[in-house]
Amino acid sequence: MSTVSLTLDEIFDLAKKTLLANGCDDETASILSDLIRNAERDGSLSHGLFRLPAYVSGLKSGKINGKGKPEVKKISASVIKVQGNNCLAPVVLNKGLPELAKAAKENGVAVLAINNSHHMAAMWPETEKLAEEGLVAFACTSYKPAVAPAGAIKPLFGTIQFHLHGQTWKTPVVMIWHCIMAMGEVQVAKREGHKVPLGTGLTKDGKETTDPGAIADGGVLLPFGGYKGSAIAMMVELMAGALVGDNFSFETAAKDNNDGGPPSGGEFIIAISPDKTSGTNWQKHADEFFDKMKSFDGVRLPGERRHKNRLDKGPRNINEELVNKIKSLS
Amino acid sequence: MSTVSLTLDEIFDLAKKTLLANGCDDETASILSDLIRNAERDGSLSHGLFRLPAYVSGLKSGKINGKGKPEVKKISASVIKVQGNNCLAPVVLNKGLPELAKAAKENGVAVLAINNSHHMAAMWPETEKLAEEGLVAFACTSYKPAVAPAGAIKPLFGTIQFHLHGQTWKTPVVMIWHCIMAMGEVQVAKREGHKVPLGTGLTKDGKETTDPGAIADGGVLLPFGGYKGSAIAMMVELMAGALVGDNFSFETAAKDNNDGGPPSGGEFIIAISPDKTSGTNWQKHADEFFDKMKSFDGVRLPGERRHKNRLDKGPRNINEELVNKIKSLS
Repeated sequence: MSTVSLTLDEIFDLAKKTLLANGCDDETASILSDLIRNAERDGSLSHGLFRLPAYVSGLKSGKINGKGKPEVKKISASVIKVQGNNCLAPVVLNKGLPELAKAAKENGVAVLAINNSHHMAAMWPETEKLAEEGLVAFACTSYKPAVAPAGAIKPLFGTIQFHLHGQTWKTPVVMIWHCIMAMGEVQVAKREGHKVPLGTGLTKDGKETTDPGAIADGGVLLPFGGYKGSAIAMMVELMAGALVGDNFSFETAAKDNNDGGPPSGGEFIIAISPDKTSGTNWQKHADEFFDKMKSFDGVRLPGERRHKNRLDKGPRNINEELVNKIKSLS
Repeated sequence: MSTVSLTLDEIFDLAKKTLLANGCDDETASILSDLIRNAERDGSLSHGLFRLPAYVSGLKSGKINGKGKPEVKKISASVIKVQGNNCLAPVVLNKGLPELAKAAKENGVAVLAINNSHHMAAMWPETEKLAEEGLVAFACTSYKPAVAPAGAIKPLFGTIQFHLHGQTWKTPVVMIWHCIMAMGEVQVAKREGHKVPLGTGLTKDGKETTDPGAIADGGVLLPFGGYKGSAIAMMVELMAGALVGDNFSFETAAKDNNDGGPPSGGEFIIAISPDKTSGTNWQKHADEFFDKMKSFDGVRLPGERRHKNRLDKGPRNINEELVNKIKSLS
């Protein structure tokens, strides 16, 4: 793969220029470019520049509003609701998270329920922001159906994200996708001629397979952990769907214009104040748990790699084809 | 297996008599017997009479206080904390849940943080009680280490429970254990000469195996779904441990007197008011999701079997050896 070297500032500038040229105002372009730069910085490549062409597709088709303003509404002491007004999720979060953090600190726990937003970014930026405020956060969202419920051979669940985060812990993130392998990874395995583990997905006839091509071309992904992973996927659909009053993945698919950009949907976030719930020195206590875990041979803590990548402030090697494609968009 | 037929009332009476004879006051004995009867009613056998001898062990050793009174304290608008005072969890929940429900309805979301309680019951009774109030609830607790983190060969995580529950949905429960198979099930497989699926656990030398004996005798259980299930187990340890200011499973093991009864620990419960978070007819919306899911061949919804069992008000066939053992305890 041929690459070009870009500094973190150059990554930000490339993203911002592209977004400004495609209907975003300065605020939206800045928020999204910041996120893209941070994803590249942390080695979270599937949420970096790689996503930019899809964001542009959604902006071009008019599905995403690059100049919209989300509206924040306080429903009760511990519930904040944000109407996304078809803005990209990072813009919506920028408005909602400070209100969520305030309510969680005051009351001990609070919920942020987001509607009509377009989410295709990583979720750790939002949980991380809350964690920096001394809170523990969960976030979840859905997408279009890609994963079959355990026992079935047709997709129902989206490629859902589900996070727990406490920045002040030495190791801050739990990140979970409910499918064993993202469809993107299956496509990479197909391209590179690798097999995938049994249980990753089914063929279009519902048969188990280790052939990534048979999964990618009309087959379906399976949830991790069989019935248990399937139950978690269901839980996330319910939280990011009915509980915030927004689409389930199957409804999203029916409503989306399939322009390649992120569809409209909801996001559900809970922030908890451990200062209120623990009554003890919870940070020290949690660190004792992580120390114990790290004392076990073979254990890697979730998020470790990303936080190590972050320490490197130098330039990043970006896929040249991707850079050229992005440059052609403005 | 030889069985005796007991009505649901007889199950309650047998449990209550046994508990009263072993240091419980009427309130504690009634609450626990009610729970045991309901577990037998619902076919949740591992939380029915089967647990009674272990409760008695904890009462006899003095670890569990059968006459104690939990103390409820409101920390902030949305955080209720209960000092369990070494009461059994169902007694503690009996005091804490009404306060949690009240706070969740008022504020939209609330947390119940329980300390110094002894939990060995199912968790659906608490989430179910909240769901009957029109709330959606999560609950989680830890235990002694039995499950290795992904990548490791020694146990760290307890056999943890994690639930999402909405009673008003047609199908009300998501129930998840973070290990693929409970150690009790592995022991049953050993006794009956069955193999267990690869990935269930490791031998005492850390090797993969399908032999339940090699797992049960000095081996270790594995989390479901590899790294992803392991991350969920870690999340539950953090919530039921540091976040409520109580023991992690590994600390529990160090402190317990190993009398066979449930050790002291914490429980973490969140209750959410969908009326506040959704802004829509969330019950109808959630039911549309379940209808969609049930339209898929091969899909079974979590909790279905238990709710079907519940409709049968007739007597239950109970293991005769167990009944005789319980009778010998009073």
